Amino acid sequence: MYLQDEISQQPAVIQRLLNEGRPDTEAAAAVIRDFNPPFVCIAARGTSDHAAIYAQYLFGHALRLPVMLATPSLHTVYERPADLSQALVIGISQSGKAEDVKAVLSDARRGGALTLAITNFDESPLAQAAQLRLPLRAEREFSVAATKTYTAQLTVIAMLASALSSDPAKWDDLAALPGLAQEALQRSEGIAGWTERYRYSDKLVSLGRGFNYATALEISLKVKELTYIGSAGYSEADFRHGPIAVIDRGHPVMLVAPRGRTLAGMAEMAQDLSERGAETLIISNDEDLLRAGRQALPIPNVAEWLSPILSVMPGQVYAMRQALARGFEVDKPRGLSKVTITE
Amino acid sequence: MYLQDEISQQPAVIQRLLNEGRPDTEAAAAVIRDFNPPFVCIAARGTSDHAAIYAQYLFGHALRLPVMLATPSLHTVYERPADLSQALVIGISQSGKAEDVKAVLSDARRGGALTLAITNFDESPLAQAAQLRLPLRAEREFSVAATKTYTAQLTVIAMLASALSSDPAKWDDLAALPGLAQEALQRSEGIAGWTERYRYSDKLVSLGRGFNYATALEISLKVKELTYIGSAGYSEADFRHGPIAVIDRGHPVMLVAPRGRTLAGMAEMAQDLSERGAETLIISNDEDLLRAGRQALPIPNVAEWLSPILSVMPGQVYAMRQALARGFEVDKPRGLSKVTITE
Repeated sequence: MYLQDEISQQPAVIQRLLNEGRPDTEAAAAVIRDFNPPFVCIAARGTSDHAAIYAQYLFGHALRLPVMLATPSLHTVYERPADLSQALVIGISQSGKAEDVKAVLSDARRGGALTLAITNFDESPLAQAAQLRLPLRAEREFSVAATKTYTAQLTVIAMLASALSSDPAKWDDLAALPGLAQEALQRSEGIAGWTERYRYSDKLVSLGRGFNYATALEISLKVKELTYIGSAGYSEADFRHGPIAVIDRGHPVMLVAPRGRTLAGMAEMAQDLSERGAETLIISNDEDLLRAGRQALPIPNVAEWLSPILSVMPGQVYAMRQALARGFEVDKPRGLSKVTITE
Repeated sequence: MYLQDEISQQPAVIQRLLNEGRPDTEAAAAVIRDFNPPFVCIAARGTSDHAAIYAQYLFGHALRLPVMLATPSLHTVYERPADLSQALVIGISQSGKAEDVKAVLSDARRGGALTLAITNFDESPLAQAAQLRLPLRAEREFSVAATKTYTAQLTVIAMLASALSSDPAKWDDLAALPGLAQEALQRSEGIAGWTERYRYSDKLVSLGRGFNYATALEISLKVKELTYIGSAGYSEADFRHGPIAVIDRGHPVMLVAPRGRTLAGMAEMAQDLSERGAETLIISNDEDLLRAGRQALPIPNVAEWLSPILSVMPGQVYAMRQALARGFEVDKPRGLSKVTITE
């Protein structure tokens, strides 16, 4: 089973990026600093789009840099894109073959933008279309559901933010990641012991906020890809504006709630959901909150800005275990292929 | 039942905006033109966030203006917002009481940004926090599920794009809207005749692209709010990148596919879904595509850029009819209140 192997390779991929990727990252950061963009635009699809959302929060937080997500259809379907000439435009794609992501970068570069590709294939069309390239160094990913390339994307983004921020403490936080990732995976082994309870569940909501809004979306996507159940990820705040109406007794809800600024709001949501009779599955490093949920998915303590790299891991493992409990082929979900090309 | 009344008031609200709102809109456009922002940032929650997504596509398409969606938690939870000093920052909120939306505008204005509030309450905190105001003129909305304020938001955005584009043909397109909206509602009356088929369906996916990506998201939210079923809206392109795995025989999928640039891709998706055995419900003004679906939700012909104002209407009616078929209280869904304040 490739999926399990690839999940388990994540600490080593992160270590490799930290060992080998810093010079490229510092060089890219220097070019970006010279260009001095007033905003960033990121084009991506699927899992890579969740890495883009992490970047949106991280660049805002660490660099005060506004980040927009691209609207690829304006480039490909309507052929009337927005003016990105002043922007840093980043394309993120595991395969580097996403046509629409490449179209955003090509249009933007022609207009004068600075372009950067983050991909696992340095010779891919996307990488070739960009002025700057940051490889994922994740080795080939065989399973259709992306896992190690996702956390590699997050790590590359975190390294780039560190290089742009010129705050050396950020690199210290990063240096701890491979060990913490290993610990997160070890702690996720317990999931196999209770996953059967959800064998016949037909829905899952996942919630996060701030840095971990991306994590909620990514876990929901893994669950959809691997177990085929209708799953939706939300920002905890957006969830209150309507979707919370779907919650009734027994509805499984996964909360991504590591320690940090978003913990209080997430704990309040967990309490509210418990009162509605929901079945809460909690990813956290806060002992009190972990105890308050129906299921605990513990992760180690980690700097909040890097927590998404760890907090997605129990979600990956949960999705895989659910798929196995249901007897599904985890490496090749029905109706999907590894490379999806949309225009 | 307020909901049905408010749905039926939409043509009149649009007419009122066109009759009374143009001078304010032209005045706001003049200030924006002077400010000459390189990009726009929009803060909104829930239904209003879908209006923001419409603006993202429309401003890009009509004005080449890049639009980002705000990250309110950076303002409220993390207190480290991105630098929006060069941007036009728009807050959209029916009630004008959204604390986090107001926080984005207040922070941005303090930093030097130009701010604009789009709300149904001109005396609301959000409206008072902004330099420019465009009221929705929708009269009070009593039903918790927003309908007429949503299409009013879209209309205000379309009017602002027209004023900024200085293309007089856009106003001609707009002038046809009230009559077309009336026709869209009349054509939606047929939905009541077949809605019972879905009485026990427990899921719905809705798909759109480009201008109607927002419509797919908004219909999915109405369905969640009113029928409590797990529903998710996607861009047709994003859907191919993973979520399509959830589709099996009988899965209901609503496709928002009016004539225009996105029609070909949406028709291909409809075909693909039919081959997978999905149950397709098609909102369109293309006779061939309407015939190809299991259910036809026809709308009149309309300029593509304005189609979201009409194409959401059959979705609103479908959600209401489903709720009635299930015996739910449509004006006051469980667990929701009209004004949701998140920080």
